[in-house]
Amino acid sequence: MSLFQSKTLNKDIPIPLYYQLKEILLEYITKHHTDIDQPIPTEVELSSHFNISRPTVRQAINELVVEGYLYRVKGKGTFISKPKIKQDFLQILDSFNNEMQKKGLTPSTKILSLKVIKSDEKVSEALNLPIESDVVQLRRLRFANDEPIVVVVTYLPYEKCPGIITKNLENESLYKILENEYGLTLASATRTLESVLAGEYEAKLLQIEKGAPIQFFESITYLADGTPIEYSLAKYRGDRNKFTFELKRKDI
Amino acid sequence: MSLFQSKTLNKDIPIPLYYQLKEILLEYITKHHTDIDQPIPTEVELSSHFNISRPTVRQAINELVVEGYLYRVKGKGTFISKPKIKQDFLQILDSFNNEMQKKGLTPSTKILSLKVIKSDEKVSEALNLPIESDVVQLRRLRFANDEPIVVVVTYLPYEKCPGIITKNLENESLYKILENEYGLTLASATRTLESVLAGEYEAKLLQIEKGAPIQFFESITYLADGTPIEYSLAKYRGDRNKFTFELKRKDI
Repeated sequence: MSLFQSKTLNKDIPIPLYYQLKEILLEYITKHHTDIDQPIPTEVELSSHFNISRPTVRQAINELVVEGYLYRVKGKGTFISKPKIKQDFLQILDSFNNEMQKKGLTPSTKILSLKVIKSDEKVSEALNLPIESDVVQLRRLRFANDEPIVVVVTYLPYEKCPGIITKNLENESLYKILENEYGLTLASATRTLESVLAGEYEAKLLQIEKGAPIQFFESITYLADGTPIEYSLAKYRGDRNKFTFELKRKDI
Repeated sequence: MSLFQSKTLNKDIPIPLYYQLKEILLEYITKHHTDIDQPIPTEVELSSHFNISRPTVRQAINELVVEGYLYRVKGKGTFISKPKIKQDFLQILDSFNNEMQKKGLTPSTKILSLKVIKSDEKVSEALNLPIESDVVQLRRLRFANDEPIVVVVTYLPYEKCPGIITKNLENESLYKILENEYGLTLASATRTLESVLAGEYEAKLLQIEKGAPIQFFESITYLADGTPIEYSLAKYRGDRNKFTFELKRKDI
């Protein structure tokens, strides 16, 4: 417990004790992320070291388990989880396959469905098409090192890429096909990001618990002339992904 | 129900019926966001219109309630929630007060705690200080139109802004004080974004349920010469915030 030697909880401030402990444990986890699958001190050890009740310790640990920082093995203890994958596609538009490969992970894709449908109001608006236009709807589950990472629904204007539903989208990059076979160069995108909870369907696909945190991205991708070419809805596992970006002050 | 006239569920694809209905309802909600607090069709109406069981309808509605798109009033029905606040600070570094005012919302701040502490390893690393340096720790709860939006913990190197703990940080912008009184001009930031669940402490502060979705931002802000000046951990209510940004292809 020498790691926690300089750490104490403060009973005189309005921050709950469990939360103060949680912050200390989070720092510990961050420091030990190189030692994944290592056990953390037991509840008994933590409660005696910080002089707090076991339920207080348990509450801190429970929240860290729910958040994916720790995992429990019955009869063995509580262990540090793998760190989240650092995604930086918030600023650079790139394909999932390229993103993963840059991080040394092996990407793979499972096609859940691929068909031509009539666009509803939402898809029509995103792709700037009349309602009931033909659009390609592609649902994919994407993996990094065989672990499911994101489930994506993509809509494309059918007339811009006729025949795309016959392509091998499990092994070839959609962006590469659009570029090489249809001459469509994706230039920019607008993206909206929300934090939501996994419903039953996504939970099953992503192998997480229902109610687990999800990063939900809604994107519209444009050609250089501003024509929308792709509308996509992506749900990333919150426990396995984090997103980084840089920002500048506007006026300097 | 004429709104749903062209919509049907497809029993022949591997997408669960409840999920197909959920997607249809989400489109309906998006279209009707201007009519907030309007009721949606009843479970009975939806189940008869789409020819599916009431539990299937209920599952779709339940998930939309948990995700904050709908809310229920006992004995009255299910209603469309206020849309989330569109935040665009993912690209532009600006103060919370400015952000809110630009959106026509009235910002306010409650100071939860403000003190000088010794930096732990995590804070020291972020601010590039020796361990156990003096740092200002500021915990704030921030509101838009009296609704709690985000809880933020901010760390500042004490020697760069001595005396800041005597300032009125409820009414004055931290960024303005740093700039006007200490000559510290914030130039850029790096930010990491995660999707997590509200623990008991944040849930209480933000007036949401424990386990509700949270956007967690970890930021380091720098002066023009690259010196880190602010380390902050912000937890935004997932049900009331979404973040938008634009991105470009790297190689064109």
